[in-house]
Amino acid sequence: MDEVKREQEANETARLETFADGVLAIAITLLILDVKVPHVEQGGSLTTALAQQWPKYATFVVSFLTIGIIWVNHHHMFKLIVRTTHAFLILNVVFLMTICILPFPTALVADFVRNPDGRAVATAVYGGVMTAIAVMFNLVWRYAGAGHRLLVPGITDEALAKMNRNYLAGPIVYGSATIVAFFVPYISLAVFAALAVYWLLPGTEPRAQAATAQR
Amino acid sequence: MDEVKREQEANETARLETFADGVLAIAITLLILDVKVPHVEQGGSLTTALAQQWPKYATFVVSFLTIGIIWVNHHHMFKLIVRTTHAFLILNVVFLMTICILPFPTALVADFVRNPDGRAVATAVYGGVMTAIAVMFNLVWRYAGAGHRLLVPGITDEALAKMNRNYLAGPIVYGSATIVAFFVPYISLAVFAALAVYWLLPGTEPRAQAATAQR
Amino acid sequence: MDEVKREQEANETARLETFADGVLAIAITLLILDVKVPHVEQGGSLTTALAQQWPKYATFVVSFLTIGIIWVNHHHMFKLIVRTTHAFLILNVVFLMTICILPFPTALVADFVRNPDGRAVATAVYGGVMTAIAVMFNLVWRYAGAGHRLLVPGITDEALAKMNRNYLAGPIVYGSATIVAFFVPYISLAVFAALAVYWLLPGTEPRAQAATAQR
Amino acid sequence: MDEVKREQEANETARLETFADGVLAIAITLLILDVKVPHVEQGGSLTTALAQQWPKYATFVVSFLTIGIIWVNHHHMFKLIVRTTHAFLILNVVFLMTICILPFPTALVADFVRNPDGRAVATAVYGGVMTAIAVMFNLVWRYAGAGHRLLVPGITDEALAKMNRNYLAGPIVYGSATIVAFFVPYISLAVFAALAVYWLLPGTEPRAQAATAQR
Repeated sequence: MDEVKREQEANETARLETFADGVLAIAITLLILDVKVPHVEQGGSLTTALAQQWPKYATFVVSFLTIGIIWVNHHHMFKLIVRTTHAFLILNVVFLMTICILPFPTALVADFVRNPDGRAVATAVYGGVMTAIAVMFNLVWRYAGAGHRLLVPGITDEALAKMNRNYLAGPIVYGSATIVAFFVPYISLAVFAALAVYWLLPGTEPRAQAATAQR
Repeated sequence: MDEVKREQEANETARLETFADGVLAIAITLLILDVKVPHVEQGGSLTTALAQQWPKYATFVVSFLTIGIIWVNHHHMFKLIVRTTHAFLILNVVFLMTICILPFPTALVADFVRNPDGRAVATAVYGGVMTAIAVMFNLVWRYAGAGHRLLVPGITDEALAKMNRNYLAGPIVYGSATIVAFFVPYISLAVFAALAVYWLLPGTEPRAQAATAQR
Repeated sequence: MDEVKREQEANETARLETFADGVLAIAITLLILDVKVPHVEQGGSLTTALAQQWPKYATFVVSFLTIGIIWVNHHHMFKLIVRTTHAFLILNVVFLMTICILPFPTALVADFVRNPDGRAVATAVYGGVMTAIAVMFNLVWRYAGAGHRLLVPGITDEALAKMNRNYLAGPIVYGSATIVAFFVPYISLAVFAALAVYWLLPGTEPRAQAATAQR
Repeated sequence: MDEVKREQEANETARLETFADGVLAIAITLLILDVKVPHVEQGGSLTTALAQQWPKYATFVVSFLTIGIIWVNHHHMFKLIVRTTHAFLILNVVFLMTICILPFPTALVADFVRNPDGRAVATAVYGGVMTAIAVMFNLVWRYAGAGHRLLVPGITDEALAKMNRNYLAGPIVYGSATIVAFFVPYISLAVFAALAVYWLLPGTEPRAQAATAQR
């Protein structure tokens, strides 16, 4: 009977994970659609034209890696989540919505990063969407974790509290960088790029994994 | 033997759910492609240009949440469905077609909501597609539920009749709002937006879930 | 041991089915991208502009239903296939390629169906891609069925021969309609539309299903 | 207990495979978006206009088959991989990023292959992305294979060494063809096309499969 229940639970989150993976996979792949073949004037150089598009490549890489890391973290998080509720599904839909928006501010920054008039606003919009993603990620986790509501058995309160703290770093760092964007947008952009690279490094994964290992 | 049969049934709906999840995930993610970087005149303000695009953001959010809620309900419905037939697969394909159309009327409303000449028609087309989605959702459910054809065992006739009634709300509300669109399009749009938010609220999930809980 | 082997086989085709479902789901959803918001002149009517786009809607529906039916048939076919080989995976990749091309001739027909100069060529290209899809579908099936190579046990030679014959209808009908396109393109288009509707009808599914039922 | 562990391992790579399949399926399907309906002048011939687009079709087919073969090889590779680590997930994200870039150089080559000024650069960019894909594929494999870190039990050191050598062919051939692009771009393009066809042939699958068969 316990086995049957465990299987039902697995099936319960399986379809949510499939849907989330689908949305994340599509959002990450659509990013390339904004990198277009440059128009080259008669006698112009393709190399120069390609080089001048560097903001397109830079923003593509940063947004791609960011969504990739979100996917990895979502993956880790769902190792600990074994049940769903209607409200939890809805929270995930809103979380996925914030990610699906990302191609828009990515294109915005690529187009306005060299324009002194629009740079600050474009960066702030990008940061705002990143902050919204980080906030929603925390809401999804907090809902699942509150009173161990949807979690696998065997996670200690200390491990839970530690994960709550770890995940809070996202909204704080992205929120701060967004505020900075209004004053020195280049610093914000450097922070967004640095975070994407930083979270690629070994040893920066959330403690969720450690908790799972102890099961 | 019963176990083998149960597993075969699970596999039978599994591929339909995967395909439906894929189509829903793509349709929901494609919506952002209509939110484009605005063109800013020399000396113009990016903030103003972004603000003027508000119908793009509003229609994006409403259509995204609507598809998201359809996914959640499809998810709930398939907890009760354990078999498929050729006709049921075909019904699902047509249901998915109505959802895939949604990016088109979404862009239509975004472009014409501020145009007094086209507003009513654009809103009516949007409502027409929403009504078609709701009708197809009911047809899919009614086909599966008729005589408990494709359902898990243990659902009472009362529970079934109650769900039939619940699901009927969709076509009626969307159909009515579509008719209103020809007279006062803003009311229809407000209804579409209100429904997307309403169904996010806890306690508005279909009784399907309750029925499953009793299994 | 038999059970272990059966499970391995299930996993073997599972990833192929997932990939095929993904490609089919994306190809079917991308079709809507060609249905664009019409440009309306100052003082023009949106209703008229929308109505003049009818070939876009017609080709969208026909191509959507056709891919949908291909998915249903692929689904039925893989109930009978339990093993894969390298060559079989490659054949499936080429089969999926022919389907992924479909958005292009769909747009071509929509743009040239009212143009007497291009109508025949556009229709023939559409028919050519449809024929290629039907041919590849047969090659995939014939490879799997030859000597019962990749099939579940228990399918009789008679059932196999009958399915081979049934599946042959596709290339023959689409190929013939493609040749007709050079002389009377409207007849070809009517055939493509009629086939999409015909295969939606109950009782037109391949005998594969019947064969499975007898297992 | 062993069975439980094996199942956990299967689940561990399952979500990575689903995500990778999703990204590969979308990247492969997006390629058609660059094949557009040609503009035909008043009195012009659609046949001629379609024929003049041949580089679009050629690059579509080569890139499609290349991604298709990458998927087949990824499929074979993951038959041998049963565990994941945080670093391995990150490596896969970067690997998928190189594949997602492919639609861009594909469009670049299609647009500049007939332009003597841009042909070499466009081909070199295409080759550079292909080389990056091949390098990342090797890194993914080497990380998993190093000390049999993430592999199924029962693979001999000889089999592993042989696979390492086999997979090295990719970066070497694509890297060389990329260097050649600066001098004789047509030779590079012929190599890319020839490789896509060559790897379709039976008997060119990696030895991974042979190793699996012996389990």
